[in-house]
Amino acid sequence: MDTKSFILVLSLGVAMAKQPWGGRPSWRRLPNIIIMLMDDMGWGDLGCYGNEAQETPNIDKLAKEGAMFTDFYSAAVFCSPSRAAMLTGRLPIRTGMYTNITFGKQTGVAVNGTGGLVPEEETIAEVLSRLGYRNKIIGKWHLGNSKEFSPLNQGFHEFFGSHQNHLRPFDNISAPNNAVFRNDKMVGRYFQKEFFINKETGESDLTRIWTKDAVEFIDENRNNPFFLYWSADGTHEELGAHRDFLGTSQRGLYGDVIRDLDHGVGQIITRLKQLKLHRNTFVFFGSDNGPMTGIYGGSTGPFLCAKPTTYEGGMRVPGIFWWPGVIPAGQVEKAPANLLDIINTILEITGGEVSNPERPLDGQSLWPILIDKPGATLEKDSIFYYRGNGLYAVRVGDFKAHYWTWILDPLFKRLLRRGNPCSRVYIENFTTEELTDHNDRPFLFHLGRDPGETFPIDPSTDEYQIHLEVINNVRDQHLKSLEGDIGYPQLNMIDWAAADWSPPGCEEINMCLPVPESNPVVKPYP
Amino acid sequence: MDTKSFILVLSLGVAMAKQPWGGRPSWRRLPNIIIMLMDDMGWGDLGCYGNEAQETPNIDKLAKEGAMFTDFYSAAVFCSPSRAAMLTGRLPIRTGMYTNITFGKQTGVAVNGTGGLVPEEETIAEVLSRLGYRNKIIGKWHLGNSKEFSPLNQGFHEFFGSHQNHLRPFDNISAPNNAVFRNDKMVGRYFQKEFFINKETGESDLTRIWTKDAVEFIDENRNNPFFLYWSADGTHEELGAHRDFLGTSQRGLYGDVIRDLDHGVGQIITRLKQLKLHRNTFVFFGSDNGPMTGIYGGSTGPFLCAKPTTYEGGMRVPGIFWWPGVIPAGQVEKAPANLLDIINTILEITGGEVSNPERPLDGQSLWPILIDKPGATLEKDSIFYYRGNGLYAVRVGDFKAHYWTWILDPLFKRLLRRGNPCSRVYIENFTTEELTDHNDRPFLFHLGRDPGETFPIDPSTDEYQIHLEVINNVRDQHLKSLEGDIGYPQLNMIDWAAADWSPPGCEEINMCLPVPESNPVVKPYP
Repeated sequence: MDTKSFILVLSLGVAMAKQPWGGRPSWRRLPNIIIMLMDDMGWGDLGCYGNEAQETPNIDKLAKEGAMFTDFYSAAVFCSPSRAAMLTGRLPIRTGMYTNITFGKQTGVAVNGTGGLVPEEETIAEVLSRLGYRNKIIGKWHLGNSKEFSPLNQGFHEFFGSHQNHLRPFDNISAPNNAVFRNDKMVGRYFQKEFFINKETGESDLTRIWTKDAVEFIDENRNNPFFLYWSADGTHEELGAHRDFLGTSQRGLYGDVIRDLDHGVGQIITRLKQLKLHRNTFVFFGSDNGPMTGIYGGSTGPFLCAKPTTYEGGMRVPGIFWWPGVIPAGQVEKAPANLLDIINTILEITGGEVSNPERPLDGQSLWPILIDKPGATLEKDSIFYYRGNGLYAVRVGDFKAHYWTWILDPLFKRLLRRGNPCSRVYIENFTTEELTDHNDRPFLFHLGRDPGETFPIDPSTDEYQIHLEVINNVRDQHLKSLEGDIGYPQLNMIDWAAADWSPPGCEEINMCLPVPESNPVVKPYP
Repeated sequence: MDTKSFILVLSLGVAMAKQPWGGRPSWRRLPNIIIMLMDDMGWGDLGCYGNEAQETPNIDKLAKEGAMFTDFYSAAVFCSPSRAAMLTGRLPIRTGMYTNITFGKQTGVAVNGTGGLVPEEETIAEVLSRLGYRNKIIGKWHLGNSKEFSPLNQGFHEFFGSHQNHLRPFDNISAPNNAVFRNDKMVGRYFQKEFFINKETGESDLTRIWTKDAVEFIDENRNNPFFLYWSADGTHEELGAHRDFLGTSQRGLYGDVIRDLDHGVGQIITRLKQLKLHRNTFVFFGSDNGPMTGIYGGSTGPFLCAKPTTYEGGMRVPGIFWWPGVIPAGQVEKAPANLLDIINTILEITGGEVSNPERPLDGQSLWPILIDKPGATLEKDSIFYYRGNGLYAVRVGDFKAHYWTWILDPLFKRLLRRGNPCSRVYIENFTTEELTDHNDRPFLFHLGRDPGETFPIDPSTDEYQIHLEVINNVRDQHLKSLEGDIGYPQLNMIDWAAADWSPPGCEEINMCLPVPESNPVVKPYP
């Protein structure tokens, strides 16, 4: 704690008290929860993670005043599965947020997808709802297009954003532009009116719109516990930044967008402070997967490859926790952790309980190390790297074994205009263009000595044998835990009629489009 | 300035006063100068530059309390040329610290080299000496093996260290182990007695020895201005760390060495504070070139390739400036700067003057931006990337043009056991195994958008034409400035008799070896 904070504590009084460790913390008032989840933002994109442009002062300040994880991971290599995993604490293989067509293929909910995060799965919003929280998601949902899969059916009281991505402009003829909703009613379409993204100039007000709404939500709920899921997706294609930031970054439009998002984070934190809520608010800042380096921009820092791979660059992402006065400032945590741990951590903070304790959760609470409890360590030190239903790699401690490797899939091959997710790095038999099975002799790396996964450990050494055995055991135990808990694959069910042709509310804003004939099919993502 | 520092200023009083900008600063007492120059330490090796292991708390604290440069460069791709450039402010092509055999080849002073930094060149130690400073170098000199080229002949009053590297163990029969000197007398040999490096275990006390001597020098000179050049070379082969750190790093022996060095930095800074000298001491922390990633370890962060190349990974290095109360805390500077700027900066701080103002200096003072003068910018925004006498690349602003590319040279090919300086990155026609001329169409990169130098700007674009012309002009002006100022190449003169067989003082410690017949030749480094 720096002197200034210390003086603040003295003058304002300690805002909460907690029981000695052993029971749940007992806050005078339930803390507010804010999750800021970025879209395709890389580990190396923030100043506090060493980005060479150093253009994220507000997010860096969160890290400086809170805890920054060096070994933080997304829960999957694509948006939808990773987001579902964060909200439920369960791997996509359990919840069904994957496709089983083409082993390992796994994208998001398609614009014409009819699957989603099934209502039987419980989100953290549902748990918090039972505790009396007011919950809102702002921005990208991406866990299902229909009413059945709406955030309003998963514990959120309010919704402002899209079921979908703000993907490349559709023409409203062969494909409808994705719709923007306020709660259960459509209020616009991406690329049109106030939800515009100018493809020529890169200008867009979207981040500003998500920010303004977040600040208003905080204002409205200043006197009751709230949960805000700020899902500002500016760093995903198509890139767009507010005109104030256009051309201001050292690293092009992608950097302009990051500056815009950083400004938004600053606005939200400032408002918390103005309302004196900051000492009663838990903030998590993260990203849903690695960046699309070489296509849209973004940095993986020293890590290999990028989205959508299971090399470190595809899944190692920023992870920052902030709660002034409770989470000690300036912590750097090196324990492996990931988005699956968020729900357990919030359960511990709030005393909330899942409705079915028998249903397996894949994460663990980070709270003991976040509050810097002396001698605290985490029980688990493993990370599972999935693509679709394929478990590609497993990390235990500092060692990571790759059982399957694959740098591309057909969808991405089409998108790749300038490079591939491995930015032209080539490591023989390891950065493979085709899905390759190494189960007979997995590639093993020590991520401490070799974070870039460049020098595989020699299989003839004792080190290889010993650590591979450890990892194999962890993998086998994990696979056993899946028995009876595999979800039906949701992401390969499509129907053009399911796209945003005429969502509820379209008539009020005169944006309805003729709905094509329904033709539900189960097939790969187009 | 944080609250704590502010309180300190109030309670201790302001230690110095300076004139309004425009004249030289006028300190009550001349400030002490400490240069901590690491050996082969990469941009990505420090926590404050985003290293994923986060194992350098003391150096990170320097950055936090001072100014950290994101775009800081060495002055060459090898130790000797870069160190000569830092001490003189002049490029190796001017001082002669290069070899002209095999275009672009440039290493250090060989163990049997007879050349060095010629006495006619003036070092910052000589300037400071005239101002009354007490000067000492501790650790690696590497600017010449003979008495003529000794640091004692270049302005240093004291010397504890080696003329040479602590290179791989020689056998004292076919080649003598390199000697360690105290002033003009040999006091030992590397790999023997107290200067041991255990090749089996990686244990070595060298960093501890250099640290202890630094602290003693500071103690002895607490009442007079001093200049300490702390040239602790632990991160150069052969790697060795104190037993306290062996096996403690997440990233192997290289990390153990970094932790040992970081501990040394902490010891020196602590002593400055204990003696209340910290508010009167200017500290610069840097590195002489990029790391030998994949051979000995080290991280270039997001940058391409490593030592000894002119891609960013070969020359982008840490650059940290610290002077509590004078250099504002927490600054992140993005202006391109390099080791050549150190002498100009020190001249400005101390009011020192070079003896021959007609002799061109290649750097500029960083003082205006270091003290955060409102609106201050640097006059020059260019960086010249040399290998030997070859100007391979030029950066102006955010753009960098590569005129020549080459990832290897024959010396390094021999050393490369596990990889090459480009860590298996391959970019067609750009990461070339043979020296390749691109002068007809240089590769151009925007280092902001593409710090990894992966996506060359299309030569058919206006952007390419406009910025290449700017860079070509800067290059041409620079080459013109060299007219009449090219040094005689020092690094290809060798003689086995010149190695450390029987240096002065060897008889007192019974470490003399028979000197072979002299056979001076001018040829490539063996």
